[in-house]
Amino acid sequence: MPREHLRIVVPAGGIGAARFLRGLLIAAPQAEVTVIGNTGDDITLFGLRVCPDLDTVMYTLGGGIHEEQGWGRRDETFVLRDELAAYGAGPAWFGLGDRDLATHVVRTQLLGAGYPLSAVTAALCRRWEPGVTLLPMSDERVETHVVIEDPSAAAGSGRRRAVHFQEYWVRLHAEPVAHSIVSVGAEDARPGPGVLEAIAAADLVVLPPSNPVVSIGTILSVPGIRAALESTPAPVVGVSPIVAGSPVRGMADKVLAAVGVETSAAAVALHYGPALLDGWLVDESDAAAVPVVEQAGIACRAVPLLMRDTAATATMARAALELAGRTGATA
Amino acid sequence: MPREHLRIVVPAGGIGAARFLRGLLIAAPQAEVTVIGNTGDDITLFGLRVCPDLDTVMYTLGGGIHEEQGWGRRDETFVLRDELAAYGAGPAWFGLGDRDLATHVVRTQLLGAGYPLSAVTAALCRRWEPGVTLLPMSDERVETHVVIEDPSAAAGSGRRRAVHFQEYWVRLHAEPVAHSIVSVGAEDARPGPGVLEAIAAADLVVLPPSNPVVSIGTILSVPGIRAALESTPAPVVGVSPIVAGSPVRGMADKVLAAVGVETSAAAVALHYGPALLDGWLVDESDAAAVPVVEQAGIACRAVPLLMRDTAATATMARAALELAGRTGATA
Repeated sequence: MPREHLRIVVPAGGIGAARFLRGLLIAAPQAEVTVIGNTGDDITLFGLRVCPDLDTVMYTLGGGIHEEQGWGRRDETFVLRDELAAYGAGPAWFGLGDRDLATHVVRTQLLGAGYPLSAVTAALCRRWEPGVTLLPMSDERVETHVVIEDPSAAAGSGRRRAVHFQEYWVRLHAEPVAHSIVSVGAEDARPGPGVLEAIAAADLVVLPPSNPVVSIGTILSVPGIRAALESTPAPVVGVSPIVAGSPVRGMADKVLAAVGVETSAAAVALHYGPALLDGWLVDESDAAAVPVVEQAGIACRAVPLLMRDTAATATMARAALELAGRTGATA
Repeated sequence: MPREHLRIVVPAGGIGAARFLRGLLIAAPQAEVTVIGNTGDDITLFGLRVCPDLDTVMYTLGGGIHEEQGWGRRDETFVLRDELAAYGAGPAWFGLGDRDLATHVVRTQLLGAGYPLSAVTAALCRRWEPGVTLLPMSDERVETHVVIEDPSAAAGSGRRRAVHFQEYWVRLHAEPVAHSIVSVGAEDARPGPGVLEAIAAADLVVLPPSNPVVSIGTILSVPGIRAALESTPAPVVGVSPIVAGSPVRGMADKVLAAVGVETSAAAVALHYGPALLDGWLVDESDAAAVPVVEQAGIACRAVPLLMRDTAATATMARAALELAGRTGATA
C-alpha cells in the first residue's frame, strides 16, 4: 500500500484533522476516505445548530475555509453578530459569521424537518464536495462538558461546575483548570449510520493529529466505535498531536491533564493504547519517544510532523501510510 | 384636541402605516400612541419567525428602515441569502437581509424560550425605541392565506389552492386572481395583551392608509377587536389607502376585489362601515367621494393624502386629528 481504492477511515476533530485530511487526499488520491466526525463540540446558539468540527472538515476540503484562521468561512462578514450585539443578545463570545450562518440555518431547518444529522451533513456536503464521505460519529446528541472550578464561587471554595466545551474553549480560553471531561449522552448514543460499516470495511484507519481527549476521545466514547477500531484487522495508525511536549495547535495540554495524561507524544500513544493503535508517528524532535512507544507494542516512527503547507502535510500522510504497511496488521 | 397626552390607538399594517405614524408623532408629539400591529403576514422562513409588519413599524419609527424601499434595514447586506442559494435552499423569493435577520434570530430564540410574541416585540423595541407602544394584534398564530387559481393545474380547470399571503404578495406579485382571503386561526385567536385595554382607554383611534383587507381587515378579524373599536366612545377616523381609484402603494386593489369591494376611497369607507368609522379622509382628487361617504353617516374631508415626505405626512395626520374633533364622537 498505498494501493488503488484503499478504504481509509479517519476519526476526526476540527482544524488539525481537516488539514491532515487535505494532505492524505494528495498522498492517496485514489483512496475512498470516510471521515467519522466529532460532534461532541456541537452547540445550539440562537436556536441554530452549529457543528464546528464537521464544518471545519467540510469547509477545508471543500475550499471554503478561512485558511489563516483554520475554521469558519473565508471572506467572512459579521453583520449578524454585530446586529445581535445591538440587541444585547448573547453570547458574543461565539462569533457566527454571515456566510457560516447559512450552514447552520440550513442544518437547523433540515433537523427541524426531522432529518437525522447524518442525512443533513450529506446534504450540506453536496455543495462542498469535500472528496470524502463525512459521517457524524452519531446522530444522537453527545455533548462534551468540562468540569471546572466555578468561576462565580468564592476563591478556594472548591465548588465546581460543568460548562459546555465551547464555553470552556472559546469563551474561557481553556484558562480554568479542567478537572474532568464528560461526554454527556455518550453512553446512550449509537454510532451514526455507516460508521461501524466503514470501520469494518476499512483497509486502514488513521488517527489524525486531533485532540486525543475532546475530539478522538469523544468519538471513542460512543459505544461500539472503540470496540470496532480495536477489533478491526486493518492497521490503525495515529499521528501525534503533541510535538516536543506541546500541542501543535490548540490547548490539548489542558484537557490531557484533566484525564491524567502527560502532554507528550509517547503519553498520548500509551493513552490510546496498543489495543487500539498499531502504529504511531511522532515528530523528529520526539525521536526519544520511539523506543517507549514500541516497547508498548506500537510501531513508531519519527518524521517531521508540522503541517506547514499542503506538501509537507502530504509527506506526513505518506509516512502514516508507510507506517501502516510496516505494522504487520492486515486489512 | 390635540391635547397633551392624547391616547391614540393605531391598528397598523406595514409601510403605509409606518410612514403615517411618523407623521402622526410629529403632529401630536405629546400623544401616547399604541400601535396594534398586523401579524397575519408573519411567516416562518428557514426556521426563523418573520413579522414583516411589526418590523416595518419598528424599523421606520426607530430609524433603521431602508427609506427608499420602505421595508427592511438600511445599509443591508445579503450574504446569508446568497449562501443559502449556494446550498440550493429556498425560498429565494423572500430575501432575508443580514441585518434584518438578527431581528428574526432574536425573536425566534425568545419565542422558542416560551415568551409570547407581545413580550418578544417589547424586547426588540427596547433597541429601536420607536416612540410608540407596539402591540401584536394577537399572541396567537393568525395567518392570512389567499385562495387563488392553482397555477400548477391545467388552465381552465378551476382548481384552486390557498397560499400564504407572503407567497401571493412577494413571490407571485399578486398576479393570480385572488378569490378569497382567509385569516387562518383568527376565529380562535385572542387579542394580544393590552390591545383591548388600549382601545378602551383611547381618546382617538386612527386607521392609517394600510391595506383594508389583509392589514386592517386581518386585525379586525381577531374576535373582540372590531367590537371594541365599534363600541369605543372615542372617535375612529381613517385615512384612505386608495387615491383616484388606485392604491397609493402596494396592490390593495387585488385583495379588495377578492372581498367584493371596489377600489375607490368611498368604497373602502363603506366597507369599514359607519359602525366602525366616525371619520374618513380622502385625497383632494377624490372630493366627489365626500358626499357619498357622509351620506353613510361618516364625516369625510378631502385633503392631500400623498405621503411625499415627513412634513406632508404630518400635515395629513393633523387633518386626521382635526377631523376626529369634528366627528361629534367623544372620548
